[in-house]
Order: sequence, then structure tokens, then C-alpha cells
Amino acid sequence: MTDPRFDAWRARADAALEAALPQPQTQPQRLHAAMRHAALSGGKRMRPLLVYASGAVFDADEKALDAPAVAVELIHAYSLVHDDLPSMDDDALRRGQPTAHIAFDEASAILAGDALQSLAFEVLAGTRVNDATRVALLRALALAAGSAGMCGGQALDLAATGSGAVLSIDDMQRLHEMKTGALIRAAVRMGGLCGGGDGPSRRALDRYADALGLAFQIRDDLLDIEGDSATLGKTAGKDAAQAKATFPSVIGIDASRARLRELGAEMADALAPFGEHADALGALARMAVERDR
Amino acid sequence: MTDPRFDAWRARADAALEAALPQPQTQPQRLHAAMRHAALSGGKRMRPLLVYASGAVFDADEKALDAPAVAVELIHAYSLVHDDLPSMDDDALRRGQPTAHIAFDEASAILAGDALQSLAFEVLAGTRVNDATRVALLRALALAAGSAGMCGGQALDLAATGSGAVLSIDDMQRLHEMKTGALIRAAVRMGGLCGGGDGPSRRALDRYADALGLAFQIRDDLLDIEGDSATLGKTAGKDAAQAKATFPSVIGIDASRARLRELGAEMADALAPFGEHADALGALARMAVERDR
Repeated sequence: MTDPRFDAWRARADAALEAALPQPQTQPQRLHAAMRHAALSGGKRMRPLLVYASGAVFDADEKALDAPAVAVELIHAYSLVHDDLPSMDDDALRRGQPTAHIAFDEASAILAGDALQSLAFEVLAGTRVNDATRVALLRALALAAGSAGMCGGQALDLAATGSGAVLSIDDMQRLHEMKTGALIRAAVRMGGLCGGGDGPSRRALDRYADALGLAFQIRDDLLDIEGDSATLGKTAGKDAAQAKATFPSVIGIDASRARLRELGAEMADALAPFGEHADALGALARMAVERDR
Repeated sequence: MTDPRFDAWRARADAALEAALPQPQTQPQRLHAAMRHAALSGGKRMRPLLVYASGAVFDADEKALDAPAVAVELIHAYSLVHDDLPSMDDDALRRGQPTAHIAFDEASAILAGDALQSLAFEVLAGTRVNDATRVALLRALALAAGSAGMCGGQALDLAATGSGAVLSIDDMQRLHEMKTGALIRAAVRMGGLCGGGDGPSRRALDRYADALGLAFQIRDDLLDIEGDSATLGKTAGKDAAQAKATFPSVIGIDASRARLRELGAEMADALAPFGEHADALGALARMAVERDR
């Protein structure tokens, strides 16, 4: 379920994140401390691993992959900070740590999220690739983060939670394709862009990434029911408490598990043409399906 | 105090903004409506005008200037939405309209701001210039928007307002150089980048932009004392009510007016080498110093 390269890639991503974030002793200190709290408080580094793993399919230079790995994690970290705010999901615990607005204050959390987003694009503009590829990376990440992607998905999620209406499976799938899927797809795409993948391989990786995003979400929904807060590092049972539409609540637990297995098979199929070059992506697929936190 | 090209440039910027923003009938509709409310509810379009005016110094193609003009206005619009939030400046009125969290709700306002920021970088990645210039534009805007620029300045502002401590003139100037100056400098820089300006002209434009940012802020502070809410389109007297450090409160009204005149002279001096090519920038300098709203 893991790949020998994951530890090294996580260490690369962590070092690059640490180097990209402003120092805590630099003014404005409270803002910088909040940014570091948000980006450095653990996390599985799933999206950076996806960048390295999809770059590895094309033997991309790992030095070129550091910037997109950091950028996608910064976008992810900012989205968690804003999603946890009182006017959004109102969550006090994340990755076993107090969320940014609890550890600091609401204004600092909003600003830290904003500045993390800017930093993601600043870092990405310095990727060690040619300028045409840099522009393609910047466009891919901006599209994935915006109202047609992550932000739009969070808006759909808030609307669904607020209305109390029962979501159709199609609407719920679309919500997650935007809320979490778009950024996962961007991570995989950026690795491919840095490695110079061609059209057919890009389409195969898109198919893999779409299945992965959905699998990740279904597993998340199942863990909210089956997991416990200590292992998860966040509050379990929250979806049910908020009467949130989830895959288990809409199609049932057994059907959700079956869908997860199907997605696992679909990912294996999408990766088959790449052979052992896609071993790391395959390990991430199994991790998404089988993880317990 | 105006330039015959300003109306045409404002119309260009408005049309490009309208085209760049997601349509209100596209899902998620509430998010898109909030984004459009934030970006299209009036405003002087000062930053887009700066992009066109500094591009005009080098006879840049106006089609190439549309994207940076839109991008800088989107960043400005997002910052206003977030600054107006209850946990920040808590303002209900902006440009004579209800602020985004009043017209919509707090979560929509936060998300709309987030998505406007992403959109700014997406738009900028499509600027009609070569890829090297695109990357330079993206880097300039990301740096100006982040914790070393606009977000950092807002953090300093919140810290100063919250502490009740008397700010030194140097600290206050630094605050405004980051909070409003960085984005104004980026607007001027981006116009120059699209026009292919050289090193010496870039330094002259930086000098102009830094003086302009400060002049703009001092005039803003004076208007908060001297202006009325109807003309301003926002709540007057708010700085004093919040015991906020402003140029008039720290160095006095007369000294603030004198500093404003000095800055006017400095801008004229910085623009002198460009002759009539800088007429539009000169008009914007006079507007910053003399405006009554």
C-alpha cells in the first residue's frame, strides 16, 4: 500500500514548503505564524505525492516537481483554513491540531488563507521548467482552484448543507468533482506537464485522477461513519450531525464500498499502459481506497 | 485632472472584466453573483487605468493590457470583500452598495473573494504577450498580493487597530506601502512589462508608483475627515470612530496636506523624462492628490 519513494518525496515536499513559507520572525509575524500553522501542521501530503508520482511516469526531474508540489499543497492548506471558519464548516480541530481561527483568530485565518493562495502562484511562477510550461502550470492550478473548481465545489457544498434538500447522486458527484477532484486532477496534470507527457497519456492520467478524487471522497465519507476522532485527527460523525449528504447517506454503505472497489479497478485500468512507470500512482490509488485516516 | 483616454480605458476594463467573470446563470449561481457584485459594483478603476497609462508610456498594444488590467482589479475587488468582513473592518457599505457579506452572506463573501483571486491569475496567464512576459506578470502580481504586500499590510493594519498603540509615521508608511502601495506598484509595473520598458524607466515608474500609493492613502485619510458619506459612497468618519492611526491623526491635517503636495511634485519629477508619453500617468497623479471621493 505504499511505495519506497513516498518518504523521500514527503521529505522533499516538506523541505520545499518550509523554504517557500515566510519566516515566523519576519513581520507581520502573526500572519506568518498562521500561514505556517496551516501549511506545516501534518497532513498526508497526498497532493504533493501525486505531483511527484505523475512526474515519475515520464521520468521528470524531481527538482522541477518541487514547485508544483508545494503550490498544490498551499492551495489545499488555504482551502482547509477557510472551510474551517465559523461561517463555513465551523470546525475547531484539524489534523489533531486547533484550526487556524482557533489557534489565532478569525481575521488572521482569513488573511493567512488569502496569502497562502498568492504564495502558491508565486512559487509556481518559479518552477524549473521553460516559460511555456510555467504558464500551463499556472493556468491549470488557477482553473482548479477557482469557481469552476474547488471554490465552486465548496459553494455547492454549503448550499446543499444549508438547504436540507436531498442531493441526487449526480449532483453530489459533481460537487466532489469540483470541491476535491479539481485539485487532485491539477496535481496529476502538473506532474505530467513537467514530464512532457503527450495527449493520450494526459487523457489516461485525467481518467485516473478523476477516479482517484471520487474514491478519496467516498473513503472520507465512510471514515466519518466508521472511524474515530483520535485516528482521524478530526471530528468523526460530523457529517451525520450536520445532516450532510454523503455517499453512504445517499446510496448506502454497501453501495459506497462497492463503488470504491469499482473505482480502484478503473484506476488500475487507466494506469495499465504505463506499466511499472506508474507504480507510485498505483500505490496512491490503493492508499485512497484502503486508508483508515 | 483627467485624460481624454480614461473613459475609453474604463470601458475596455469594464468590458474585459464582464467577459472574464463567470455568468450569473452558471452554477454555482450564488457564488458567481457574489463575485460579480464585488467586481462590477462601480469603483474608479484606478488600478486598470494605471495599467493602461503605464503601458501607454511605451506604446504597448492595448489588447495586451486588458488581462493585467482585469487581473489587478480582481485582486483589488477580492481584498475589499475580505477587508469588509465582520472579523476584519466590519463595513456594511462600499461604493454606495451593501458589501458582499451583507448582500449575500459571510461564507459566500469569503468564497467569492477566494475565487476572484484565483480568477485574477487565470486571466493573467492568458495575457497576449510572450510566455516569459506572462511569467513575469504572474510573479509581480502574486508577490504584490501576498504576505509581503497587500495581505501583509492588512495584517499590520489589523494589529495596529487592535493594539491601540500609537503608530510611528515610519510604521504607518510601511503599512500603507504594503496594504495599498504594493498593488498600485504592480499595476504600473505590469503596464511597463507589457510595453517592454527598460531598467531605468522601470525604476522611474517604481518611484512614481510608490509616491502615488502614498498620496492615494493620505488623500483617503483626509477624505475620511473632510468628506461626507454620500459623496464617498462609504461611511465617513470611520477612522476616528475606530481610533485608527491615519496620516492626519499622526502628523496632523496641515502636515498631511503638505506631504500630499510634496508627493505630487515627486511624481511629476519621476515622470519628466518620459515627456508627453506619461501624460496619462500625470493625470492619474493629479487625480490621486485632488480627488474628492
